[in-house]
Amino acid sequence: MKVQRQISQKSFKSKDGFINHFQRLIKDEVIPYQYDVLNDCADGAEKSHVIANFINAGKANRGEDVNDGFYGMVFQDSDAAKWIEAAAYSLSIFPDEALEKRVDELIKIIADAQDSDGYLDTYFTIKDKDKRWTNLLEAHELYCSGHMIEAACAYYESTGKRELLDVMTRNVEHIYKHFVTDKNEGYPGHPEIELALMKMYRLTNNEHCLWLCEHFINTRGVNPHFYEEEADRRDWTVWGSNPSDYNYMLAEKPVREQRDATGHAVRAVYLYTGMADLASQTDDEGLFKACQALWNSITKKRMYITGGIGSTVHGEAFSVDYDLPSDTAYAETCAAIGLMMFASRMLENGVDSKYADVMERAFYNGVLSGMQQDGKRFFYVNPLEVVPSISGVSPTHRHDLTIRPKWYSCACCPPNLARLVSSFGKYAFGENKATAFCHMYADSLVSFENGIKLECSTDYPFGFEVKFTIREGDGTLAIRIPSWSKKYKLSTNGKALDVDTKNGYAYLDVKAGDVIELVLDDTPYRVYSSPRVPRLSGQVAICRGVLVYAFEGADNNEDVLSLSIKRDGKISVITDKNEPYGLQAKLKVEAVRKEITDDLYTAEPLKEAPCDAIAIPYYMWVNRGENQMRVWLPEQ
Amino acid sequence: MKVQRQISQKSFKSKDGFINHFQRLIKDEVIPYQYDVLNDCADGAEKSHVIANFINAGKANRGEDVNDGFYGMVFQDSDAAKWIEAAAYSLSIFPDEALEKRVDELIKIIADAQDSDGYLDTYFTIKDKDKRWTNLLEAHELYCSGHMIEAACAYYESTGKRELLDVMTRNVEHIYKHFVTDKNEGYPGHPEIELALMKMYRLTNNEHCLWLCEHFINTRGVNPHFYEEEADRRDWTVWGSNPSDYNYMLAEKPVREQRDATGHAVRAVYLYTGMADLASQTDDEGLFKACQALWNSITKKRMYITGGIGSTVHGEAFSVDYDLPSDTAYAETCAAIGLMMFASRMLENGVDSKYADVMERAFYNGVLSGMQQDGKRFFYVNPLEVVPSISGVSPTHRHDLTIRPKWYSCACCPPNLARLVSSFGKYAFGENKATAFCHMYADSLVSFENGIKLECSTDYPFGFEVKFTIREGDGTLAIRIPSWSKKYKLSTNGKALDVDTKNGYAYLDVKAGDVIELVLDDTPYRVYSSPRVPRLSGQVAICRGVLVYAFEGADNNEDVLSLSIKRDGKISVITDKNEPYGLQAKLKVEAVRKEITDDLYTAEPLKEAPCDAIAIPYYMWVNRGENQMRVWLPEQ
Repeated sequence: MKVQRQISQKSFKSKDGFINHFQRLIKDEVIPYQYDVLNDCADGAEKSHVIANFINAGKANRGEDVNDGFYGMVFQDSDAAKWIEAAAYSLSIFPDEALEKRVDELIKIIADAQDSDGYLDTYFTIKDKDKRWTNLLEAHELYCSGHMIEAACAYYESTGKRELLDVMTRNVEHIYKHFVTDKNEGYPGHPEIELALMKMYRLTNNEHCLWLCEHFINTRGVNPHFYEEEADRRDWTVWGSNPSDYNYMLAEKPVREQRDATGHAVRAVYLYTGMADLASQTDDEGLFKACQALWNSITKKRMYITGGIGSTVHGEAFSVDYDLPSDTAYAETCAAIGLMMFASRMLENGVDSKYADVMERAFYNGVLSGMQQDGKRFFYVNPLEVVPSISGVSPTHRHDLTIRPKWYSCACCPPNLARLVSSFGKYAFGENKATAFCHMYADSLVSFENGIKLECSTDYPFGFEVKFTIREGDGTLAIRIPSWSKKYKLSTNGKALDVDTKNGYAYLDVKAGDVIELVLDDTPYRVYSSPRVPRLSGQVAICRGVLVYAFEGADNNEDVLSLSIKRDGKISVITDKNEPYGLQAKLKVEAVRKEITDDLYTAEPLKEAPCDAIAIPYYMWVNRGENQMRVWLPEQ
Repeated sequence: MKVQRQISQKSFKSKDGFINHFQRLIKDEVIPYQYDVLNDCADGAEKSHVIANFINAGKANRGEDVNDGFYGMVFQDSDAAKWIEAAAYSLSIFPDEALEKRVDELIKIIADAQDSDGYLDTYFTIKDKDKRWTNLLEAHELYCSGHMIEAACAYYESTGKRELLDVMTRNVEHIYKHFVTDKNEGYPGHPEIELALMKMYRLTNNEHCLWLCEHFINTRGVNPHFYEEEADRRDWTVWGSNPSDYNYMLAEKPVREQRDATGHAVRAVYLYTGMADLASQTDDEGLFKACQALWNSITKKRMYITGGIGSTVHGEAFSVDYDLPSDTAYAETCAAIGLMMFASRMLENGVDSKYADVMERAFYNGVLSGMQQDGKRFFYVNPLEVVPSISGVSPTHRHDLTIRPKWYSCACCPPNLARLVSSFGKYAFGENKATAFCHMYADSLVSFENGIKLECSTDYPFGFEVKFTIREGDGTLAIRIPSWSKKYKLSTNGKALDVDTKNGYAYLDVKAGDVIELVLDDTPYRVYSSPRVPRLSGQVAICRGVLVYAFEGADNNEDVLSLSIKRDGKISVITDKNEPYGLQAKLKVEAVRKEITDDLYTAEPLKEAPCDAIAIPYYMWVNRGENQMRVWLPEQ
């Protein structure tokens, strides 16, 4: 079923636009800051100890006494992996000798932390080697390996350097021996290694990677009691997790029989990504069918308009169908990133804009909202409504913060965002031998294996024109037409094209010198939810292009709770180039403001006056201080 | 400041109407069933062991080995107390020799469980006498004493029998000695005894009751660290409660300085009831000022339209201002009952219909919703919206059940409801030497200390005419005009009266033979919330009289999520005497039904068609099987 794949990292160079802006921010702010965090020299950040853990693990391997020199979460190692991966992607866009040197040094430290048998995990190496592989439920060994495999692949892709790839090859062989050759039962408590093994397989053709991935996916949930049996065999725990919550652990039944997206949202979409990847590699129709069911479960019943998923704080998890509260949302940044990964792998099974539509929705809304515009503060939790006196304060809203916090000790989202943004090109463009695919637009230079090299010029997502100039080669270029664009114009060399789309893509035969122009619909539009979503009854959201808009106190007299959108009112674009980037095109929406009285309840209709409500892109919220924010407003 | 008091229990006899219906239900179903529960012989109920605990405590007092013969919650004793109190009130309305005999027998068992020093608590008497009074934070000794004092007062009031009153007088002296004479620091973890002591003081004039109540109220929060210091002195805990959550424990500051209603909602309103009672007794203006602030905090910022309070399941507690979610509401039945108690005591400080309005709102909505119409099932939690696929299932909605469950092991609400309903007359009517007060209407015969005996005839809350026939005496009758009644007619002996009201009460000079008729506004009306309540933006509720209405699937094609109320639409009353009591007058509301499509989000407005939405009294919801329910609907 493999129909196309992500392009390689080096095939994409961002130029000036939106993506380049964020990739630079990652390079200039996030990667250096995270490096300081890893080394415990970042101002105001919680102690990380990540690099010290690796150094101590190396000492422990040599028999030195490191005096319980581990600090942090059981999955602390993964922070180093995600940093390397982000740095690797960034290096392919912005070469940087100093940064590359830092990565090389860190890789040496990591290599030194690896045991002679290939095992690599500082928590157990430092604390207790005998406990290795005895707590898959909680201990994240396979999760950390997965992230380090991804880092190794990325660094090899970007630099051609294979030291970390060699380390992780030895690690994979160690894991393969333990689980496959030696037949120790088990599957990852936090899926991640599955998708990483598929990356490594593609890069190295090492079949142990493919078989190990298959092993984990095929055994998962076959014995749903595995985690309980494992817990019975040991006398320790990391957090006291419940081994009997099969549903939460994605192990209630074999993955091919799973139909509802459940459990920890990040774990779920990481698993589904691996499943979709494996399905496309092995033409496994049963597996792809499960992926489609899980995709539909998410996107038709359990996803916020922002592409955020995992609506409940309880276990950072999927809730039940249509339970999508705006104010108590969890919607972790990492989960939206994971949804993009899943979408990208679904596109490898079948080119259909429904996958790319969701991927893009998640990126421009629920993912980017995770980062402050200065790259210094990050949301883990991305609510769609915030009222400062309630959010972050009420017992049910404690997780919904009103301001992005600084780097946490559990720093999963910031580096995840860094690696995602830095590898945006892989998600935006795909390829097979015959065809170059544009799934998302980005001001960039891209080359494809079919020989096409093109320049993509656009101010997307604020501009609605996308120009593809074919610099070299000829062949088929397939361009996604987003489903939100009710109308569009496509032309080649100035001549209007009237092409039928296939599953939302326009397939064009192009040759060097051609200029293809796509003009999308820039009309702001209203979005309604299904009446099945109890929390959105009678409400409306405003969008323009892929961007979901939000109403913030800063633009609306500090109060958005008293605003209602007029049903047939006008929506216009107000442009102001003096505003910061991201706020230069706000929307002005005809609205009504209700009078705030002191009565809690009144039998008199509230007095109201017409007004303009101002909306900004959701991802830009709370870049101007704490204030109220709402995506959905009542319509009247 | 004492302006009037509740009438005595024996001064009220319900006749035929609504209140009599419920008082009979309590007598016929709830009291006998609870007796079986207490004796562990009720079908399908969880083991209670309450009476066995008292028997075992008696044995323990005599030095017999009862082999840890305690079972249940630390406050299990209070179930017996609440049953006696309910039975006592019921006996004054429906004399019943067999029931009275049962109560007498139980009182003997309780008396036998009392230690020779006056101490009475089966948990410590059976388990460990040395731990008495060492865990006020959790152990509920004062709470259990409080309920038993209330029971003793009620039984004495109804029957003149004083055995339990004598037991509890000895118990009060024991407590007085421990806390006042012997100066052991402490105040109740779960307030209750304060209000009970005031009842006993009024009945017995024993000043130790008043002083002990004053002691607990005056010392509370003066040393906010008391619970922490207490915890430091012991090496055991009941539930591991946090002694440092001053706010939750209502001990952050002295009660006179408290301004926001916080913490466990039942504990809070029980405390406030005791405070208001003490304030009225002692003319304590500072205390009354605190009561007024707390009253305003609740009724202006933290109360559901149903009179439900304590909006969060986390600690069964008050949340922050305006955090009033319909679907994840806690709104415990007992808390609404406690709010009625508080309201009733506020009326003793100042006759103002604002207190009685809330008291009545709570009774007819958030209290009565706690009981199924057959008296066999009970809600602890009273949500204002239920969607069966989400409510009771989603991690944030687990406490919001879709069907009233049977008697719990923690059976606080059913007996609380039983005693409240059986003593409705005390809340409905008040008195001082000069004036008879009618705060709420009930088809009944009532006598007052000013010599007036009257008959009140009404089909309230379904009928809107209330007729007072003065059978004996003359003097002033003060009748509350509810604030929801935009217009009303008042007449004496058929002659229209045009009286000014004072704080919502019409004061009439009446004499034997007079017939006063009050006709209230029967027009259904819409209610809006303040825009400050985020969860109710754009929504409307429908009421008629004191009754809040709800839309249930059973009357609305099994779907209320797709309904919106037309802004200027008609609301009419549809009467059907073939329906069960409580459902004979439904409301027909002009509405719009939106089409349910398979898309989670759509840029097309949802197709809609006009329809009639049918509403029933909220308290009657889910008496016809599990289905959707909503109090608030979007208005368009």
